Amino acid sequence: MVVPDSDVPPQHTGSVQQTPVHLSPLLTDLYQLSMLHGYWHHGMHQQQAVFDLYFRRSPYGGGYAVWAGLENALEYVEQLRFGTDAVRYLESLNLFDAAFLEALRGWRFSGRIESFPEGSVVFAHEPLLTVTAPLWEAQLIETALLNTLNFQTLVATKAARCVSVAGGGSVIEFGARRAQGPDGALSASRAAFIGGAAATSNVLAGQRYGLPVVGTHAHAWVESFPDELTAFRAYAELHPASTTLLLDTVNTLASGLPNALTVAQELRGRGTELRAVRLDSGDLAYLSRRVRAALDAAGFPDVKIMASNDLSENVIQSLISEGARLDIYAVGTQLVTGGGEGGGALGGVYKLAELDGQPRMKLTGDPAKTSLPGRKRVWRAHSSHQQLAWDVVSLGSQEEPPSVGERVSDPANPLRRSRLPAGLSWENPRQTVMEAGRRVTAPEALEDLQRRARGECSRLPEGTLRLLNPHTYRVSLSADLQTAREQLISRLEDGLGDTDSGTA
Amino acid sequence: MVVPDSDVPPQHTGSVQQTPVHLSPLLTDLYQLSMLHGYWHHGMHQQQAVFDLYFRRSPYGGGYAVWAGLENALEYVEQLRFGTDAVRYLESLNLFDAAFLEALRGWRFSGRIESFPEGSVVFAHEPLLTVTAPLWEAQLIETALLNTLNFQTLVATKAARCVSVAGGGSVIEFGARRAQGPDGALSASRAAFIGGAAATSNVLAGQRYGLPVVGTHAHAWVESFPDELTAFRAYAELHPASTTLLLDTVNTLASGLPNALTVAQELRGRGTELRAVRLDSGDLAYLSRRVRAALDAAGFPDVKIMASNDLSENVIQSLISEGARLDIYAVGTQLVTGGGEGGGALGGVYKLAELDGQPRMKLTGDPAKTSLPGRKRVWRAHSSHQQLAWDVVSLGSQEEPPSVGERVSDPANPLRRSRLPAGLSWENPRQTVMEAGRRVTAPEALEDLQRRARGECSRLPEGTLRLLNPHTYRVSLSADLQTAREQLISRLEDGLGDTDSGTA
Repeated sequence: MVVPDSDVPPQHTGSVQQTPVHLSPLLTDLYQLSMLHGYWHHGMHQQQAVFDLYFRRSPYGGGYAVWAGLENALEYVEQLRFGTDAVRYLESLNLFDAAFLEALRGWRFSGRIESFPEGSVVFAHEPLLTVTAPLWEAQLIETALLNTLNFQTLVATKAARCVSVAGGGSVIEFGARRAQGPDGALSASRAAFIGGAAATSNVLAGQRYGLPVVGTHAHAWVESFPDELTAFRAYAELHPASTTLLLDTVNTLASGLPNALTVAQELRGRGTELRAVRLDSGDLAYLSRRVRAALDAAGFPDVKIMASNDLSENVIQSLISEGARLDIYAVGTQLVTGGGEGGGALGGVYKLAELDGQPRMKLTGDPAKTSLPGRKRVWRAHSSHQQLAWDVVSLGSQEEPPSVGERVSDPANPLRRSRLPAGLSWENPRQTVMEAGRRVTAPEALEDLQRRARGECSRLPEGTLRLLNPHTYRVSLSADLQTAREQLISRLEDGLGDTDSGTA
Repeated sequence: MVVPDSDVPPQHTGSVQQTPVHLSPLLTDLYQLSMLHGYWHHGMHQQQAVFDLYFRRSPYGGGYAVWAGLENALEYVEQLRFGTDAVRYLESLNLFDAAFLEALRGWRFSGRIESFPEGSVVFAHEPLLTVTAPLWEAQLIETALLNTLNFQTLVATKAARCVSVAGGGSVIEFGARRAQGPDGALSASRAAFIGGAAATSNVLAGQRYGLPVVGTHAHAWVESFPDELTAFRAYAELHPASTTLLLDTVNTLASGLPNALTVAQELRGRGTELRAVRLDSGDLAYLSRRVRAALDAAGFPDVKIMASNDLSENVIQSLISEGARLDIYAVGTQLVTGGGEGGGALGGVYKLAELDGQPRMKLTGDPAKTSLPGRKRVWRAHSSHQQLAWDVVSLGSQEEPPSVGERVSDPANPLRRSRLPAGLSWENPRQTVMEAGRRVTAPEALEDLQRRARGECSRLPEGTLRLLNPHTYRVSLSADLQTAREQLISRLEDGLGDTDSGTA
């Protein structure tokens, strides 16, 4: 997917010899380059570093996330090089030694990346992706990794939430016009599909990612004809096998519905069936019941009803609870921007865990922001019913699964401890996806990622999918890791007097 | 800016002969192409159409917006072509006639675009941009126009809001890692600068758009050295003239501050000055006062204090009201995603206003969503003190400015009428930016757009900049336009019986 086919013949793009935005080495914060410069200057850049990428809170106040964006992140890392123009630009900033800039030309990512497979269900506080590489390699890729994985995980999770409450109805992504930039739209379409969206309206996403594309018509279509019936007929004439009619340009019940019924009859007379009608304003629960009843009464029980107009998982849930009769939910703005309660961004972070064989951590005044030091491993338990049951983060040196009765602790609150129960089967849910800078797993089809996400969502403990105040899926620290963390905190705090508290 | 210099030598991108995402004709919703097909099939595609782009509510519950993204939108429209691969993809969908696909190869935008200049302050309900072109040209570009202009206007407005409460402090954009995709980050950096951000951390945005880039260092820098003081010294050694030290890796007051003071003294001994310190956690109001006092007492009144950590215009305002002593506000997530109250997306729409000489409108059950029919003109009044005072949308045929005493009405509520006062000077704030498909205005420097935005914000009526419940800037419909709208509504409603109301 890095190298899609050209849209225009080469002669049209002859002068557009640019690195695509998403592959540029400059897609980074300046401070990464300043730090690289420093590490290089002080001869530290080749020290082996371990960084973990994780988030501290599930998006939207929910209880899980769907991990997405990995494929794009790996593409980015694998091909990353500093070409002449990037170096020339950095030179123009007058911030960097010439010898450092020369060294950048030899920069390659040569490290290892472990990650949950894309489409996995993941939780707060566990290392989702771990980079092991020379310090200046691991540091540089932080911004792009976070940019790609934060956003796609946010959108995939939103899609999964919409699907989880749609009661078997389809969710489709209709957000291109409200997405955050052209590539934001494209990434959003991809991520929404992984999270469970059945299709997108974004044609470019269809082309680039092979996603199913769908669409109806706009109000402008109806307004372009002398009257609505003429407009509906004209549309159906052209797309007899795939006609969805938008009912609300004039008035949904008084005009759109009877005209759609007329066209449905006419289509049937010609041997095809109207596919769907779309409601885009007004009281969707009420209108959908009226429209369903009218379609059924007229002998069209198979015509689907699609809803649009600022939908979100909360709106879908509320429509269903009010008895709406909807088959397809076209979700736009809220899906592609990851909008809503606690939304808009996933606060994923990328923290140094080990350098040159020594565990590292960020302390700070805020305990919830204290990172987990050292190389770690994630263990995931399934119950005997194949339900996901418990994730444990252990020291990387722990080669055996957690044991029954082990006392584990809450990552955000070490006073909350539990003993691991019997009856769990443990596995390592992460895999090595890059080794020596080269990908070692094949790209997966988006359909497979969607299938993985759907499968894992269906195996979550009851209540975990709930939109608000969900059951908290257990993520714990192993006893050894908790001990190691406390020891490092004590060492770092030694000798600190004054504190950062405003009440001190 | 469409054709930035290459980052890598051509041989590296030889196989990446793709149209950049933001220039593809497939960056559109499928239904646009379905409608184009239909217009073409029914011989309507060359009918002259007028579409208006506008929004119905200012973002974030505020009273204005800063218009941004125009340059990118015009670049897109001017170069838009259907190349072989785009056509081949559309062919593969089996939705379109071969003759239509052949016709698409000849598709060009040949129309006119009028718009507020980029960086203008704009308001709800007024046509911000008007496209006059053959129907199939005007229809196709809807998705890309909305995508580009909605998002950049959202971010530029957020930046302006942050600047408006920063009391002379600088706002800088630090959001790349939380932005919505790589290009979302780039667009956001551009728009934030227009809205008043002084600089960005995004190096790619620096290169592509010539923006000032800034940065400090991360916690990982400190953790990579044996201790914080060593880390600070190492950083200052490399960037003596531009050192900003992050204070909270261990403990802001107990460790970061005294170590920064040591380094500040050492730098001064070598003839340079520490530039700034950065606070990234804890009670920023309290910590900034303590740090300011310590810096002042030690003889460093010119060292700036920068704050980061989930800032927004509301947080900045609250910090200042609590007596924080901050000079630089690094705003990330909230700025680049346009997050917060009513944020996440600007609900800009693009509505057909006239076709083939006849006014058109969307009626629907929701009066606030009823569009303004016909060709229109925008008039903007300045008071004698050069304050922006009043915007009036009139019929396009009105060649004279609105007159004193004219009865104008509220776009969302025709019952709210006012008479235009004396003492106003009227002008046409929009300009023709594209004619016959070619741009007729030169691209403007981003500094000029920022200057325009800052100037217009400073000339808004008192209270309009307020973050919440601002003074409502007057935007009215001329008497003639209101009459024309009512007549068309009556005509459309003729003969409608049943209604869409849930209580009917």
